[in-house]
Amino acid sequence: MPEIKIAPEFVEHTIMELARFGAYADTGVWRTVYSPEWVAAQDLYATWCAEAGLAVSRDAVGNVWGRLAGSEGGGSIVSGSHIDSQRPGGRYDGALGALAGLIALRALKEQFGTPRRTLEAVSLCEEEGSRFPSTNFWGSRAITGRIAPDDPDKVVGYDGETIAEAMRGVGLDPADIPSAKRDDIDVFVELHIEQGPILEHADLPVAVVDAITGIRHYDVMLTGEQNHAGAFPMDLRRDPMAGFAEIASGVINTAHRMGRPAVTTVGRVLVDPNGAAVVPRSVNFTVDARHPDPAQRAVLYARHEALMREVAERRGLEIAWKHNIDHAPCLSDPGVVATLQEAARSQGIPFMTMPSGAGHDSQQMARIAKVAMIFVRSKDGRSHTPEEFSSIPDIVEGIRVLAAGLHALAY
Amino acid sequence: MPEIKIAPEFVEHTIMELARFGAYADTGVWRTVYSPEWVAAQDLYATWCAEAGLAVSRDAVGNVWGRLAGSEGGGSIVSGSHIDSQRPGGRYDGALGALAGLIALRALKEQFGTPRRTLEAVSLCEEEGSRFPSTNFWGSRAITGRIAPDDPDKVVGYDGETIAEAMRGVGLDPADIPSAKRDDIDVFVELHIEQGPILEHADLPVAVVDAITGIRHYDVMLTGEQNHAGAFPMDLRRDPMAGFAEIASGVINTAHRMGRPAVTTVGRVLVDPNGAAVVPRSVNFTVDARHPDPAQRAVLYARHEALMREVAERRGLEIAWKHNIDHAPCLSDPGVVATLQEAARSQGIPFMTMPSGAGHDSQQMARIAKVAMIFVRSKDGRSHTPEEFSSIPDIVEGIRVLAAGLHALAY
Repeated sequence: MPEIKIAPEFVEHTIMELARFGAYADTGVWRTVYSPEWVAAQDLYATWCAEAGLAVSRDAVGNVWGRLAGSEGGGSIVSGSHIDSQRPGGRYDGALGALAGLIALRALKEQFGTPRRTLEAVSLCEEEGSRFPSTNFWGSRAITGRIAPDDPDKVVGYDGETIAEAMRGVGLDPADIPSAKRDDIDVFVELHIEQGPILEHADLPVAVVDAITGIRHYDVMLTGEQNHAGAFPMDLRRDPMAGFAEIASGVINTAHRMGRPAVTTVGRVLVDPNGAAVVPRSVNFTVDARHPDPAQRAVLYARHEALMREVAERRGLEIAWKHNIDHAPCLSDPGVVATLQEAARSQGIPFMTMPSGAGHDSQQMARIAKVAMIFVRSKDGRSHTPEEFSSIPDIVEGIRVLAAGLHALAY
Repeated sequence: MPEIKIAPEFVEHTIMELARFGAYADTGVWRTVYSPEWVAAQDLYATWCAEAGLAVSRDAVGNVWGRLAGSEGGGSIVSGSHIDSQRPGGRYDGALGALAGLIALRALKEQFGTPRRTLEAVSLCEEEGSRFPSTNFWGSRAITGRIAPDDPDKVVGYDGETIAEAMRGVGLDPADIPSAKRDDIDVFVELHIEQGPILEHADLPVAVVDAITGIRHYDVMLTGEQNHAGAFPMDLRRDPMAGFAEIASGVINTAHRMGRPAVTTVGRVLVDPNGAAVVPRSVNFTVDARHPDPAQRAVLYARHEALMREVAERRGLEIAWKHNIDHAPCLSDPGVVATLQEAARSQGIPFMTMPSGAGHDSQQMARIAKVAMIFVRSKDGRSHTPEEFSSIPDIVEGIRVLAAGLHALAY
């Protein structure tokens, strides 16, 4: 593979300019789908695509595409990520991957001309669910044809508006969503910040991602008997807080002892009635458990469920749970992974191969294309905060791996 | 001691009639201090006192007193409890003790005439803090002279009104509060429902209370590092939820293993940011720890604090706490306890002697008088709910112990 040149100044310029739309405090971004700042960001992305000599198009949900037509047939090789942010998020989560696809195609066109296979960059409209919590990958779901006809009127935002209303507000017609479906994408490569500290601890700038973890969210209700905190003896209580504490300790320890990449998080707790002097009636809590390996994932979930049942039964508590989220692991395409690994070696860029502990648009795209991802080191492993940061040298290395990979696939 | 006769029909009549003021659902009472229903309940109490031949007076905070003057000098022998309820509470918590004092004096006057020492029944205006959360025993604090001059304007209710405004609304002048102070009370005996299941499990109708437990509320803030639930490995987390779960399990187990009457409750938990897919930044929680024995109480608190410090340090978490409540145990007067025990024996009523795990007006009254309490069995140990219930036969036994005790002290 030839050496790919990426100009750091242009990379930094595009990140900073894009971050002006929805700028929050000093370093943050608050840019939810279909907001005025989102419209402005997508417009700027389209402008940059045109300036790079790419054919610009927009689909029915507002994804922006930049196309570099190939000289031969075959499905497209696509790279991109999402343009929306958390509230607030930072400058890098999502936006960096949308820019990376654009910058890589611009560099490839400048340095190598017309590709054999068609290349496309894409800025996906929505991934975070930060305005409409149940969108569940709106941009990439449209591309894969998985938005149901009644979804636009059923997806309701935190402000009570439906996503159909929000689409109409920016000139998009929800009835057109089926037209966004693509069946001509062969490969989708997404660059993203790592959002964790593993690369930082390994002192490496980039990773090739060989799987996206499986995620299950348990929403658990543990019910006991509300009593007076002073007058009711310990030995006669059916205290759901005691059961919850044991379960939370147990599931966290289970994932810790299984070792990387197993993770389990208890992030949300609602106590009823939540009074200092009252033994609670119930504790409602979430268990977020993830593993990228299908077999190990099953072991993790079985251990969590066995513990929850055992603690509840032993303590005389009622327990019930549902799965708010239950995504199977998404394995990257081995051929694309090998291509990206070879691309990194060809550019002399040290890297590791790792799974992603977070969910990404690539999971959706895997339904219609071969996928893989590239991670760029995150400072302190932070994300979903204005403090998230990746250095320009690391980002440039990431885009060079991406561009070299796309070159290998398309030239 | 002679046998004291208490008419069950009159007991039931007064309980049911009083419960009409603030009646809530089928069996509940919602009667907060200085509300119209509270005014009506105190008026009825005053009427019943007058009907019983007691001299009625009202003090500056609205406590209602019924006095049966003795033939000799010396401080008064007083019995009563509070007339206000939780929102909603039941028919028995507080009200039963106010009625018991009245019914006992009525019976003693009818059956034994003028006492040697002055007897008084009292319906205290407020104990629950259910309208003004920082009242902290408003009625008994006025009697003991512990309401500061600026308290009436500083005590603010859940609806934003000050207690000074509420007092004026029912014709009471906050400036007169110092006149409610009493320095002529020798003994205060309070009858109350147990609010716990100990008598029920022991199959006994009543108890003599030899101490009111010491209470400390720790308000604990445990702070770690907020991270992505998927991308951050278990071994690098500083997860305050993991620390909290270990602490909650530990303090609950500590009290359980110390045995009765030690109790520790974790009733209130606030997680920040409380998202299913976010390792929390902080967990704020309460630890309510109680023991009636001063030395054992110190052991309980020391164990809790050592555990909290150890868990936080080992897990790299920051921890800080304050005491929202810190009441020393209140020991009953041994002489009054002995008198009540002897009273129960004299009436042929089986009883046990136990500490109270809940706080009561008697704690305040102990600053100016010798105190002791009588507990009546609670069904299922319930209180602070419309479902609380004590049977008329049990209540009659409790009032007979009270009346026999007052007879021994005053005749």
